[in-house]
Amino acid sequence: MTPAGGGGSLGAMEPQITPFMELALAEAEAAGRRGEVPVGAVLVAAEAGEVLAAAGNRMEETGDPTAHAEMEVIRAAASRLGALRLAACDLIVTLEPCPMCAAAISLARIRRLTFGAYDPKGGGVDHGPRIFTQPTCHHRPEVVGGVAEAACSGILQAFFRDRR
Amino acid sequence: MTPAGGGGSLGAMEPQITPFMELALAEAEAAGRRGEVPVGAVLVAAEAGEVLAAAGNRMEETGDPTAHAEMEVIRAAASRLGALRLAACDLIVTLEPCPMCAAAISLARIRRLTFGAYDPKGGGVDHGPRIFTQPTCHHRPEVVGGVAEAACSGILQAFFRDRR
Repeated sequence: MTPAGGGGSLGAMEPQITPFMELALAEAEAAGRRGEVPVGAVLVAAEAGEVLAAAGNRMEETGDPTAHAEMEVIRAAASRLGALRLAACDLIVTLEPCPMCAAAISLARIRRLTFGAYDPKGGGVDHGPRIFTQPTCHHRPEVVGGVAEAACSGILQAFFRDRR
Repeated sequence: MTPAGGGGSLGAMEPQITPFMELALAEAEAAGRRGEVPVGAVLVAAEAGEVLAAAGNRMEETGDPTAHAEMEVIRAAASRLGALRLAACDLIVTLEPCPMCAAAISLARIRRLTFGAYDPKGGGVDHGPRIFTQPTCHHRPEVVGGVAEAACSGILQAFFRDRR
């Protein structure tokens, strides 16, 4: 794993970046161009490897404070599958989900969560309330964090640097 | 406070039920008639005392696992006000919010949360991750729990009793 902050463009790929994380990164970059905090997510039907939904943050665009990338792909995939539970689905996202999104991932019964950058200030998986470790958490996905971390955090760092 | 389970119909009002909680209870009952777990929420512009949005659970209706009553009113009120932050707004809900909804309430900067029944198994305010007590929680609303508790929990108990 290269240290966070070394990458940031899709041109400088780390070897472990999967096509799904590449797509999440592309959604993050597109979100940044729209003036959103650049986070992107992809929801995949695990068995078929089929992308059910891909989205970036849409809070500014929609005026909805809950329109995080993860919420957008969960809603879109549930609508597409006509199912409240996405048990055979994996979610790939460029940033550690916040507590709201982590709890939504649990409600949707998502099988595996893969995320890129860690978020000590706002994350809810490995930080803060650590939603999946709570005794009252009714579904714990498999979690893989720190995937393509340099590229994922690089996009965020560049976005906030440009805004200063 | 009368003990939980004694009420359940809008006819048997406890004295402390405010008009806003009455409306939330009516939304909960309407949700139950649609086959949803009967939880209702109201979002109010605090100063004016104006109802900005009222909704019950809509997961079954919409096929969206995140369509809890609280999320519905937050989205509707943000859309109506054209604002990501609902800092001058209060949320009234019949059941203790789950961790997803509690975190969304924090993201939306809601001023005060009033809820009815406590939810030891699924709540995220006084139970589970206790979202607002986390050091990384960036906004803590004022919280008043147990308001109209008997009526709020009675609707839920009747719903689950009928389904057995």
